[in-house]
Amino acid sequence: MPALHGKHLIGGDASAESENTFQSVNPATGEVLPTVFHEATEAEIDRAMTRAAAAFDAFRKTPVETRARFLEVCADEIEALGDPLLQMTQAETGHPQPRCLGERGRATGQARMFAQFIREGSWVDARIDLAQPDRQPLPKPDVRSMMMPVGPVVVFGASNFPLAISVFGADTVSAFAAGCPVVVKAHPAHPGTCEMVAGAILAAIEKCGLPPGIFSLVHGRTNAVGVGLVQHPETTAAAFTGSLRGGRALYDAAAARRVPIPFYAEMGSVNPIFVLPGALKERGSAVAAGYIQSLTLGVGQFCTNPGLAFGLGSAEWDQFVTQAAEGAKNAAPATMLHAGIHHAFVTGVRELQERSGLRLAAQSSQPADAAKSEAACHVFETDADGLRQNPELYEEIFGPVSTVVKCAAPAELEEFASQLDGSLTASLHGTEEDLATYRGLIDILEKKVGRLIFNGFPTGIEVCHAMHHGGPYPASSHSFFTSIGTRCIERFVRPVCFQGWPQSQLPEELRDDNPRGILRLQEGVLTRDPVTRG
Amino acid sequence: MPALHGKHLIGGDASAESENTFQSVNPATGEVLPTVFHEATEAEIDRAMTRAAAAFDAFRKTPVETRARFLEVCADEIEALGDPLLQMTQAETGHPQPRCLGERGRATGQARMFAQFIREGSWVDARIDLAQPDRQPLPKPDVRSMMMPVGPVVVFGASNFPLAISVFGADTVSAFAAGCPVVVKAHPAHPGTCEMVAGAILAAIEKCGLPPGIFSLVHGRTNAVGVGLVQHPETTAAAFTGSLRGGRALYDAAAARRVPIPFYAEMGSVNPIFVLPGALKERGSAVAAGYIQSLTLGVGQFCTNPGLAFGLGSAEWDQFVTQAAEGAKNAAPATMLHAGIHHAFVTGVRELQERSGLRLAAQSSQPADAAKSEAACHVFETDADGLRQNPELYEEIFGPVSTVVKCAAPAELEEFASQLDGSLTASLHGTEEDLATYRGLIDILEKKVGRLIFNGFPTGIEVCHAMHHGGPYPASSHSFFTSIGTRCIERFVRPVCFQGWPQSQLPEELRDDNPRGILRLQEGVLTRDPVTRG
Repeated sequence: MPALHGKHLIGGDASAESENTFQSVNPATGEVLPTVFHEATEAEIDRAMTRAAAAFDAFRKTPVETRARFLEVCADEIEALGDPLLQMTQAETGHPQPRCLGERGRATGQARMFAQFIREGSWVDARIDLAQPDRQPLPKPDVRSMMMPVGPVVVFGASNFPLAISVFGADTVSAFAAGCPVVVKAHPAHPGTCEMVAGAILAAIEKCGLPPGIFSLVHGRTNAVGVGLVQHPETTAAAFTGSLRGGRALYDAAAARRVPIPFYAEMGSVNPIFVLPGALKERGSAVAAGYIQSLTLGVGQFCTNPGLAFGLGSAEWDQFVTQAAEGAKNAAPATMLHAGIHHAFVTGVRELQERSGLRLAAQSSQPADAAKSEAACHVFETDADGLRQNPELYEEIFGPVSTVVKCAAPAELEEFASQLDGSLTASLHGTEEDLATYRGLIDILEKKVGRLIFNGFPTGIEVCHAMHHGGPYPASSHSFFTSIGTRCIERFVRPVCFQGWPQSQLPEELRDDNPRGILRLQEGVLTRDPVTRG
Repeated sequence: MPALHGKHLIGGDASAESENTFQSVNPATGEVLPTVFHEATEAEIDRAMTRAAAAFDAFRKTPVETRARFLEVCADEIEALGDPLLQMTQAETGHPQPRCLGERGRATGQARMFAQFIREGSWVDARIDLAQPDRQPLPKPDVRSMMMPVGPVVVFGASNFPLAISVFGADTVSAFAAGCPVVVKAHPAHPGTCEMVAGAILAAIEKCGLPPGIFSLVHGRTNAVGVGLVQHPETTAAAFTGSLRGGRALYDAAAARRVPIPFYAEMGSVNPIFVLPGALKERGSAVAAGYIQSLTLGVGQFCTNPGLAFGLGSAEWDQFVTQAAEGAKNAAPATMLHAGIHHAFVTGVRELQERSGLRLAAQSSQPADAAKSEAACHVFETDADGLRQNPELYEEIFGPVSTVVKCAAPAELEEFASQLDGSLTASLHGTEEDLATYRGLIDILEKKVGRLIFNGFPTGIEVCHAMHHGGPYPASSHSFFTSIGTRCIERFVRPVCFQGWPQSQLPEELRDDNPRGILRLQEGVLTRDPVTRG
């Protein structure tokens, strides 16, 4: 693995002022990795944000083609890091190589998707209402508006996606695509991966002739660094993927500012699965197998991990539970991301085991090796009364643990769906007739989740235009925005309106001649036509 | 004027449980109006929100045509209230009849605009990515998403627009258009107007066969009513127009919830005007006249009222100030909305008079009659040093008072633009060459405001698709959203995604056959074509 320096990268300049340091650890071996990383000081945070603000005007005015090309060059540079990056990621996270490779593909693929999206350009929602100087009783002015970048954005990467939701994840990519400078708070569990990816971004900045202030990477393990970034006066928005506790603390810090800023937090959820009678009859064992596969994918370390599965008591349901238990037994324990997450998982499972009203249906037959931070798959079993007694089951435990809940009647499915907090997803397995029959349940879930899945599983999110990764709190802090898919660019832009503005000074998206050929709402009609004046 | 009952209207049922009551006052006469209004109790707030939540499913599933027609019938019913509504509004607000008539036209006009907007339907941002079952290494699922209504919305009407930003203002109309039930907190300064307009909405609900729970009106003067509405668990979003102090308190209450909700507050701003040299030379006196007209329009009680005017010291600037002062002297004092606003205005002006570093350039020659809550127009004068000594000048004083600031150099214009808090608008008067020369100033203003006006004035906002009424804090609490214009519907919707969902159960906007013919993003391409499967 390459030698790293462990310093912050502030607009391209390395800095390491603090003597408060930390190192990352290989969770599979306990080995402390050699690079010493420094906690960011207040002065370093201030420098990163100040340089971002100073670079904003130049960056937002770059031609769209330059920004699109920049995203592509970033992707190229990350790929050019080759195997050493994947090895570093594996060493810091325990992710096997195929997963690292797949995740890198997702990161670079989404950058290229955004490049095409901004080249097309209609996403800016350009609107033009023409003047009517002779209107009575008052003349109508010429009014035009479009979405423009908001300013410096702070990004908090996720521990579980060291490549696809980290230094160059969807948050950074969409902010860059919008024209916003980005300051990334490196995740302290994979700081080496962060440093390497940051190097690729800096190389791309240089190749594209962009101002270095548009990107900084700062390290830190303390709350002070996160709060300092969120509360810096130059910060105009922040995006976060992580725990409810961490996300809520930063959300509160953002809301408490003299000038509040949007804090977009994706904080995980319980992702219920409903196995309806038609599916139990037709293919209960396939659903059970898919459920355990989804539960154990990535050692259960996905925001979309299914934490609860519901069905109606029947011979087929008992069969489903038996098959799920069988699947859990056969699932091999695997290394979690870091010791802290492993500890929380083990503690969470132990607390469930000590509760009355539910029982452990099965766990991985092969013992988990704590020295390797391994997690065993656990499936618990309960019924309606048990769930009513244990509302803690509605809370996410990060890792491969889930509870199957036997309900006595459709009304209980609706009762529990109503009790759920907001969730990223809900999955329904059934026949098309089941969907019609359980319309009441779907009505509830439509208000509770961001994504409804039919005969599929929530993990393995598809990165595409229509994807929505968000949902009512605590799935996300502001359910109106997604953190994956092209719609996530909307988190970093605001409308700016030009009234009576001369053609020569308008952004090209709002000019009469529509040089970029984008779709615009002109006099209330969507069109790519230029403005013609009668 | 009609006899009123003074009760809350909770899903169509009148209620008045509290003995804590109040009456409105005619600000022009001091006359206490006869109707006794009741403070809403916790139980009444709970009932309004619970009924809104219960009506949500039925309302969100109504055909778009029903919702569009409902908005139009509301407009018809409000117009059918005839002169008695306009008289009530005048009695409660001091607005002259032509203003009341104009404002009613704005309210009904925007309802009809929204009806057309949702009929067209493309605003839902429907997106479709098709399945590729044979894709390697993993099959691609069918993913579709669109914006759907978020749930019950609480609306706080503005004191200054008793018809256009109140019970049936843009907030209520856009929430209804989206499919959200609405609970309005009546403004305590014009509760009679609120009751009458609520009656029109209830009549429209009945005519359109909609569930009565979709609309409630509750009265109250205390913070407890506002906080109770914002913190009710069934509330999913709230919209507010009013003071920074009131808006911030409610924003904090919304952010402090266990489940935070978006609180969209439009809290006013200082709306700077920059008179550039070309304009001073070409038509300084016309600009001075327009400035005073804008300042005194509606007795200065607009969110967009111009509180600061900047120019470069010159003979032309001195002339501009003289002409503005002349205009201020000629402006007749007029009645403000209510005694509280009048008191705040008089206090604010007195404080300015006591400051050093600025001087009163002129005030209305005709004395203001305090018994009629009259405000006189005041124009203060200062220079760069004076403004630096008095940063309070960056804060809005609601009413017809403004300060002209003489700067020594373009750098000072940029300095003060940078010092400004966020603002709804900034206006530049100049030639097209001025705009090019002062590009640095515009760069700053583009980051500070929601709407940039060239050779025009900020008051008299045009209600249209391209309008943006919002801006960086404190102009609004979330600068990504507008409170006027069709884009304001985006405050009350969130994306919902359907994966692998069968055609029969999809919302019609996402079905293959595209029965409404809306524009959709299909496989990354904007099209109205139906989905054809190869």
